[in-house]
Amino acid sequence: MSHTITVNVSGMTCGHCVNSVTEELTELKGVESVTVDLNSGGLSEVTITSTLTLDSAEIGEAVAEAGYLLVSNDA
Amino acid sequence: MSHTITVNVSGMTCGHCVNSVTEELTELKGVESVTVDLNSGGLSEVTITSTLTLDSAEIGEAVAEAGYLLVSNDA
Repeated sequence: MSHTITVNVSGMTCGHCVNSVTEELTELKGVESVTVDLNSGGLSEVTITSTLTLDSAEIGEAVAEAGYLLVSNDA
Repeated sequence: MSHTITVNVSGMTCGHCVNSVTEELTELKGVESVTVDLNSGGLSEVTITSTLTLDSAEIGEAVAEAGYLLVSNDA
């Protein structure tokens, strides 16, 4: 079974940023796909599909590793 | 003797963009250094120091190779 989670990430501005975030998130265990709806200068929606349930802490760490900030998806 | 030229490049938004442009320009023959004053969402000033005189056509090609647009520096 696949799990899908969408989170908001700030600070992403271009395709290189998309690549960086996608690369870091893809390294998380169980991740099958990462899709980014880039909103340069605002919050980008990042959707992650995985075989395992991901917690926001590990997603936040991966996003930070890429150099960006995970923003609460309740915002 | 060193030559210095400053050109305007549009479309650069982040440090990755700076790296891409710097990398392509550094590959040009004679280039010693590349400095970018990033202006995300506007024109970024790119200053190139080289031992040989560079023409704007080769600079424009390198910038395009990185995925950005050289704008006339008379503008």
